[in-house]
Amino acid sequence: MKVRNCKNLIILILKKFGLIKNHALISANALVNAELVGAYGHGLSRLKMYCDRISKKVINPKPKIKIKKITQSISLIDADNSIGFVAADVAIKKAISNAKKTGIGLVAVKNSGHYGLSGYYAEQAVKKNLVTMIYTNAPPAIAPHGAIKSLFGTNPICFGTPSGSKAPFILDTSISIINRGKIRFAAKNKLKLPSGVALDKSGKLTTDPNKALRGVQLPIAGFRGSGLAWMVDILSGVLTGGNHAGRVKDPFDDFSGPQNIGHLFITFKTNLFVKDYKNRIKDNIKNVKKLPKVKGIKEIMYPGQNKYKRYTKNLKKEIKISKIIKKELEFLKN
Amino acid sequence: MKVRNCKNLIILILKKFGLIKNHALISANALVNAELVGAYGHGLSRLKMYCDRISKKVINPKPKIKIKKITQSISLIDADNSIGFVAADVAIKKAISNAKKTGIGLVAVKNSGHYGLSGYYAEQAVKKNLVTMIYTNAPPAIAPHGAIKSLFGTNPICFGTPSGSKAPFILDTSISIINRGKIRFAAKNKLKLPSGVALDKSGKLTTDPNKALRGVQLPIAGFRGSGLAWMVDILSGVLTGGNHAGRVKDPFDDFSGPQNIGHLFITFKTNLFVKDYKNRIKDNIKNVKKLPKVKGIKEIMYPGQNKYKRYTKNLKKEIKISKIIKKELEFLKN
Repeated sequence: MKVRNCKNLIILILKKFGLIKNHALISANALVNAELVGAYGHGLSRLKMYCDRISKKVINPKPKIKIKKITQSISLIDADNSIGFVAADVAIKKAISNAKKTGIGLVAVKNSGHYGLSGYYAEQAVKKNLVTMIYTNAPPAIAPHGAIKSLFGTNPICFGTPSGSKAPFILDTSISIINRGKIRFAAKNKLKLPSGVALDKSGKLTTDPNKALRGVQLPIAGFRGSGLAWMVDILSGVLTGGNHAGRVKDPFDDFSGPQNIGHLFITFKTNLFVKDYKNRIKDNIKNVKKLPKVKGIKEIMYPGQNKYKRYTKNLKKEIKISKIIKKELEFLKN
Repeated sequence: MKVRNCKNLIILILKKFGLIKNHALISANALVNAELVGAYGHGLSRLKMYCDRISKKVINPKPKIKIKKITQSISLIDADNSIGFVAADVAIKKAISNAKKTGIGLVAVKNSGHYGLSGYYAEQAVKKNLVTMIYTNAPPAIAPHGAIKSLFGTNPICFGTPSGSKAPFILDTSISIINRGKIRFAAKNKLKLPSGVALDKSGKLTTDPNKALRGVQLPIAGFRGSGLAWMVDILSGVLTGGNHAGRVKDPFDDFSGPQNIGHLFITFKTNLFVKDYKNRIKDNIKNVKKLPKVKGIKEIMYPGQNKYKRYTKNLKKEIKISKIIKKELEFLKN
């Protein structure tokens, strides 16, 4: 399907489910972007879930989003259970304008939902020449170090900065070895998982994505990854007024109420402390790139560089849609 | 040696090397704290190095530290090549006062040196009821993903928050599987390293700490850990005006100039977005602690909890000093 047609189809569907045009457009842009960067677990495979949640009244299609000014730099957004894309869009725009005004922005969001890729919002700040750090929690997927039951989400750590080149430097790394979206994608498309990334609910290693979804994903680096996931839960949940401590509902399986996910957006200007940030970051990247390389590696990539390449390449192509998802789209449209 | 005597001995030595009394005290407190929390690689084993660097005029014993106000929230500190402890002490105090005044503090430091444990400074902010995030870079120790030469430091990620209990929640995690200080400690005390944490300079796994120091430490979680180390290099070096891209000199081996390490301190109030932060964090920790546990684990600990236990226990004991370090102290004293 052509990119434009795909976007229009999503807008059509979300408007049918009650979103206003602008909110449908914001959501469609985020979903199409996920497809274009190759993050299929955050793309079209989630559209039915969002629509289901609207139908079951656990996403509010007509939210009254409130922005509370705490200081010139700091804002709190109550997203009124909007679709996460819209909450995050309002938040990153506020974080950008706060940083432009005062040098730094800190924006918390509560009563939000799954917003897709943190990196997508980081890119918006980086385009405005800001450094950004973004945190969000997610439904239980990872067992804290020492526990055999999952509680933390895959809780990504996201950092973005202008790189001095076209492709922004965007680190967007889950604390899980494997992305939960990828497991869902595998389950939906009947693919196997690599070994060593997840346990079933009895605590045994599994390559079955359905068993992994009911079991536990393994955190990166043992207690270190567990600690980082805990940090993200505190920053995005405890601090903001969002759900935390394992209370964020799974958007696919649990329709007993809204997710009330929390997010935290930090933004600041690149030139607060140095005049020549652009040259400094270019020099930094150049020095890493010129290191001797592992056999078979042509170029050392910075975070976000590969994703940007995929995006620009895919932008010229049609979006490939699996049979299962095609059926879902047909169903949702009618 | 008794804790008080140990502290006085360090003060005596550092004053002899030219530090003013207050700077010697700040440094002694940090070094003794490292011993008490069991981070021996950041304790007495480093004192000779600091003295050597002062003698060779690459640490300035009488620095004129300049604090530049960027905004009410944001400050830049030029540490004038002070011993790192003093630069970090000035910085965390500034970050605390900025956050108390405006809700958020962002303090960058340039022309600094190795400051020991990030967690030690995080504790100071947490005691003032603030959340804090601290970043510093370090001499090359980790190869970027795809490279076979080290460039990033062990670049810790540090996060602290009040926990609602006596022991603060302090995550202070190196991006290296093993802490460089621990490798130095092993080298100094002729101990072996665990396998799988470091490569020698030819790229082979090694358990010899001396070979590891000349080789490469392995990052946590492959490209994810490499990306996190890169983020820390940008936040603490590129942004602040400090050295970066592998230019931070090894404090033990390279006396060709000052280290010019950069640090970044972020602080903010706990009650910006919620009224009951203390109850929320207590509830968060309680819910993690009550999860079913891995066999043999009695209690799930939050980051910093074990360290605090060690600290309070060790505070009542004498500090154990190895023969090699005893000799160094005798030598430095006279």
